[in-house]
Amino acid sequence: MKRIAVLTSGGDAPGMNAAIRSVVRVGYVRGVKVIGIYRGYRGLLEKDFRQMLPRDVSGILEKGGTVLKTSRTIEFKEEKKQLRAIKNMKEKGIEGLIVVGGNGSQAGSLALFKKGFPTIGIASTIDNDLWGMDYTIGFDTAVNTAIDAIDKIRDTAESHDRTFIVEVMGRDAGFIAMDAGIAGGADIILVPEVKFNINEIVDDIKNGMKKKKMHHLIVCAEGAIHARDLGKIIQERITIDTRVAVLGHIQRGGSPTRFDRLLASALGEKAVDALLDKEKGKIVGIKSNKIVLIPLEQAVTKKKKLNLKLYKLARELSV
Amino acid sequence: MKRIAVLTSGGDAPGMNAAIRSVVRVGYVRGVKVIGIYRGYRGLLEKDFRQMLPRDVSGILEKGGTVLKTSRTIEFKEEKKQLRAIKNMKEKGIEGLIVVGGNGSQAGSLALFKKGFPTIGIASTIDNDLWGMDYTIGFDTAVNTAIDAIDKIRDTAESHDRTFIVEVMGRDAGFIAMDAGIAGGADIILVPEVKFNINEIVDDIKNGMKKKKMHHLIVCAEGAIHARDLGKIIQERITIDTRVAVLGHIQRGGSPTRFDRLLASALGEKAVDALLDKEKGKIVGIKSNKIVLIPLEQAVTKKKKLNLKLYKLARELSV
Amino acid sequence: MKRIAVLTSGGDAPGMNAAIRSVVRVGYVRGVKVIGIYRGYRGLLEKDFRQMLPRDVSGILEKGGTVLKTSRTIEFKEEKKQLRAIKNMKEKGIEGLIVVGGNGSQAGSLALFKKGFPTIGIASTIDNDLWGMDYTIGFDTAVNTAIDAIDKIRDTAESHDRTFIVEVMGRDAGFIAMDAGIAGGADIILVPEVKFNINEIVDDIKNGMKKKKMHHLIVCAEGAIHARDLGKIIQERITIDTRVAVLGHIQRGGSPTRFDRLLASALGEKAVDALLDKEKGKIVGIKSNKIVLIPLEQAVTKKKKLNLKLYKLARELSV
Amino acid sequence: MKRIAVLTSGGDAPGMNAAIRSVVRVGYVRGVKVIGIYRGYRGLLEKDFRQMLPRDVSGILEKGGTVLKTSRTIEFKEEKKQLRAIKNMKEKGIEGLIVVGGNGSQAGSLALFKKGFPTIGIASTIDNDLWGMDYTIGFDTAVNTAIDAIDKIRDTAESHDRTFIVEVMGRDAGFIAMDAGIAGGADIILVPEVKFNINEIVDDIKNGMKKKKMHHLIVCAEGAIHARDLGKIIQERITIDTRVAVLGHIQRGGSPTRFDRLLASALGEKAVDALLDKEKGKIVGIKSNKIVLIPLEQAVTKKKKLNLKLYKLARELSV
Repeated sequence: MKRIAVLTSGGDAPGMNAAIRSVVRVGYVRGVKVIGIYRGYRGLLEKDFRQMLPRDVSGILEKGGTVLKTSRTIEFKEEKKQLRAIKNMKEKGIEGLIVVGGNGSQAGSLALFKKGFPTIGIASTIDNDLWGMDYTIGFDTAVNTAIDAIDKIRDTAESHDRTFIVEVMGRDAGFIAMDAGIAGGADIILVPEVKFNINEIVDDIKNGMKKKKMHHLIVCAEGAIHARDLGKIIQERITIDTRVAVLGHIQRGGSPTRFDRLLASALGEKAVDALLDKEKGKIVGIKSNKIVLIPLEQAVTKKKKLNLKLYKLARELSV
Repeated sequence: MKRIAVLTSGGDAPGMNAAIRSVVRVGYVRGVKVIGIYRGYRGLLEKDFRQMLPRDVSGILEKGGTVLKTSRTIEFKEEKKQLRAIKNMKEKGIEGLIVVGGNGSQAGSLALFKKGFPTIGIASTIDNDLWGMDYTIGFDTAVNTAIDAIDKIRDTAESHDRTFIVEVMGRDAGFIAMDAGIAGGADIILVPEVKFNINEIVDDIKNGMKKKKMHHLIVCAEGAIHARDLGKIIQERITIDTRVAVLGHIQRGGSPTRFDRLLASALGEKAVDALLDKEKGKIVGIKSNKIVLIPLEQAVTKKKKLNLKLYKLARELSV
Repeated sequence: MKRIAVLTSGGDAPGMNAAIRSVVRVGYVRGVKVIGIYRGYRGLLEKDFRQMLPRDVSGILEKGGTVLKTSRTIEFKEEKKQLRAIKNMKEKGIEGLIVVGGNGSQAGSLALFKKGFPTIGIASTIDNDLWGMDYTIGFDTAVNTAIDAIDKIRDTAESHDRTFIVEVMGRDAGFIAMDAGIAGGADIILVPEVKFNINEIVDDIKNGMKKKKMHHLIVCAEGAIHARDLGKIIQERITIDTRVAVLGHIQRGGSPTRFDRLLASALGEKAVDALLDKEKGKIVGIKSNKIVLIPLEQAVTKKKKLNLKLYKLARELSV
Repeated sequence: MKRIAVLTSGGDAPGMNAAIRSVVRVGYVRGVKVIGIYRGYRGLLEKDFRQMLPRDVSGILEKGGTVLKTSRTIEFKEEKKQLRAIKNMKEKGIEGLIVVGGNGSQAGSLALFKKGFPTIGIASTIDNDLWGMDYTIGFDTAVNTAIDAIDKIRDTAESHDRTFIVEVMGRDAGFIAMDAGIAGGADIILVPEVKFNINEIVDDIKNGMKKKKMHHLIVCAEGAIHARDLGKIIQERITIDTRVAVLGHIQRGGSPTRFDRLLASALGEKAVDALLDKEKGKIVGIKSNKIVLIPLEQAVTKKKKLNLKLYKLARELSV
């Protein structure tokens, strides 16, 4: 393989730049030309290609977002677009493609593979919802950002003896909420993976107040319930001062953490080496603290399970 | 004067703890007993008093929120409550009161003064809307938190070529929005003090796109327009990808900055010295980089003006 | 077991408070009395004991350092002191001891176990040098602090086209240097585990300059070479502007990250459950992303190896 | 005036990029061509000039360091170099020069003015030692970085009951030390402007220990005494555990704060307008919260005084 391409797709995640840098530099070291494709699959269709050399990725390691830019992937589901994408790559002599992104983006990568084009995915989404791996690039930074926000909110909660409901991202998964909840010292964590009962939440708060816990912190995943809705219900049931905080897009940005910079660097290297080893239709990720290769088919279609031991731990710690 | 009290009231602001620490330690150095009143005016009514010594305020300088806790002040507007508060203080031998807080809280301080009790205010609100002074305790930290969030959001805005509308706090004033907007590199800043025209905003964005500005950042004060409403209008008029971020309560918390720690320390010292100098019915603040004493009557009733030169500067910088 | 104790010992590490909180609260949930021992083994000898209830550990999750305080362990190597420690615990009805700390501290824990007292260690040191586990509490935060510092230093390095040598902690191990180096984008990383040749370093810099790399960043472990010494050698050999930064104690403090808060919470729970399950003479840690129990004897005496794949990756990324 | 130039010189300071951006964009709005000169006076001598348009300064507002790069100014003191610099600018049609930097850099700016070339300085140095103004660009960020480091170090000081001596930058002035000391809660602050007596420091620590202050924090300016030297003296006199931290270059870098971004933006605008108003040989700065123009001659030669009220405040707060 003499020429490979790399694109970032879907929601941006901190560490994507570190992954791009790793692909470009490791590719260079292995003697392969690396082509950057701009704006995800859109750039693949519009031939927005540029060769990338080691110095082109200087100074991006610490930056959030993605210098290759990104786009949503909805339109890429049409077969004729996929074929055009492959044609565009072949015209430029590109023999393999590395796709940095989450679930939806890897579905595109899988589609191209099924049409016969060698692709390797790099697992990158703040939601951490890709099957077969423990962590995806961006998750650690996103949770740290959420924790930082929760720590600030707790200052106000304590000062006012208030109950706060903090809504975090994660789409239909509770990974961010679970980690941010435990690390943020939440009294109650609500995730889509565990059914909850409003009456029990109300009882928990009432019991807490009896134990002189004057402020409460609830962290909820956007996929479990909206903070605003929960806030209304609680205020109808208990006469307490309740406030709502939807952390929103700040969770996507920012300079990546140690964890995400290292993970992205290691996955970038592995993705290049996998392509050169004639691997395809796979995704690189971290599992049991080892870099692994997993079939894209499984990573994309299977549902990753939340570690329910953490849920139990969270309950104990909020005693 | 042998015994003075201090309370924090209204919305908490980073640096309130630094002010409490300064009042307690400077009071001690001046040979005065300092009584901490818990939960603002509510504690004043419920006699929630505790003496504070220098070691009681160790380790709080860097903490957001207020260790004295705070409460909203609405109920304190009744005259009979004000009289009861004075009675409670006199019973404990308290001869002067320092009130750390913003506009509403200083109205309470003014009321007590008018009823004959010596009070001195310390200007503390993230909104920075107290007349007669350039800055209030908490504003600098709140804007820095907003900037940090905006920097993160810009990562995503750039990666997706998206327009972002970021709503910041400030109640009916635009101080946070103006500073956060300029420091955050906003293309458009909307504040309650300056009328704006939706058509012009739409034109600005269209012109920006012609100049290859692919992402736009609008910072709006909550008192000017709600980000959500503006977002809907823009998306109806222009076919661009628009997102909304309401920063919310994270702006209140967090460890105070240099500016707020120093300001709070200096104002705490000045407030104690003012009481000992038989000053009353005044508020301490910073004006032209000097610590000043201003009649509470004026600080509370007059409307502080936004520096419109900054508005002009903001327009130039977003060229 | 009805009554257990917990102490923190050796160099403090971010996350120790999260571990204490977890031990106290999980202990409470399991119906066990938890005694906090102050100032490490010194408090054990001086009977500085206090019972800890769930509310006693409120608000410490996010704090660096250790509320139980800590001390160095040198004197605890004498047998008669170990026997006195056991006597002191037995007098108070303490049946098991949890020791939060690194290598030296766990040697004390091992000694007590060998004398017949049930002990469980919790692996906590920023150095990450405990055998048998992938990470110890505090390491992630320390490296993130180092990265943050390196990011700042790079601003100056770039602005002045300067070579910077940054010395990080880690005692005789290179774990902090390796991770901080890769994540900080270092051109050269020096660790005690890999022999290096000054001539090669000098050649690397010269080659970099030929490739228009105008600034260089060297990260060295304190156990490999002192930055000051290396700086002198480089400046004698190449006429470049060189500066030295010894990060020092800032690496120990600060609010713990997601990783350290979660790890500490999980290890605290596991340590309590291990004691209740009649485990002893072991240490809890994380291995392959699972919480594991390892004999203290091995953890303390065996030498943990640095992952040399990372060293290769670092070389490739600095191309 | 149709064409002006801008350069950054001397030690880099956070906010220099914000100043460059402001000069470039305001210049564009005023219809003036703005030329960026690279690497300070060295680039002026070597004709390292490039025109800068508004989009060339996109994304630099939040970055530490300087995209124009910088160099030390020693060699620029020769008259013939100054004349060559003026010749180089005239050749390119440059009619006015804006110099962003501190004392030494403004001496160069003054020299060019004396040789007949219109120059305006922008006060930028973390040391804050320019006469005639309250603050210089970079100071606020540098102190906030120092405070952040001190907050971390205090975690360890408290955990070990240790005395820490933290050395901060500032060359021969104590501005950073004074603000970082007060805001960091230092027990003792040593600055070059105030004579100190080692015996008194030792007595202070001994008295603190009697009052159960088990850890002490000393902040010293590099211009007052070196932390290492002070540490040795203290350890010889008192049997306490003492540690030293030299904060070093981290104080120069990092993303600028609200204060520095706004100050740099306002000073950039003012510098352009001053040149267009035919002002020359002056420097723009902030005084009493207003943007002012001061003769370079005075700013460069007079010695700025430290506010000794702060020194008194610091003593009271460490009671």
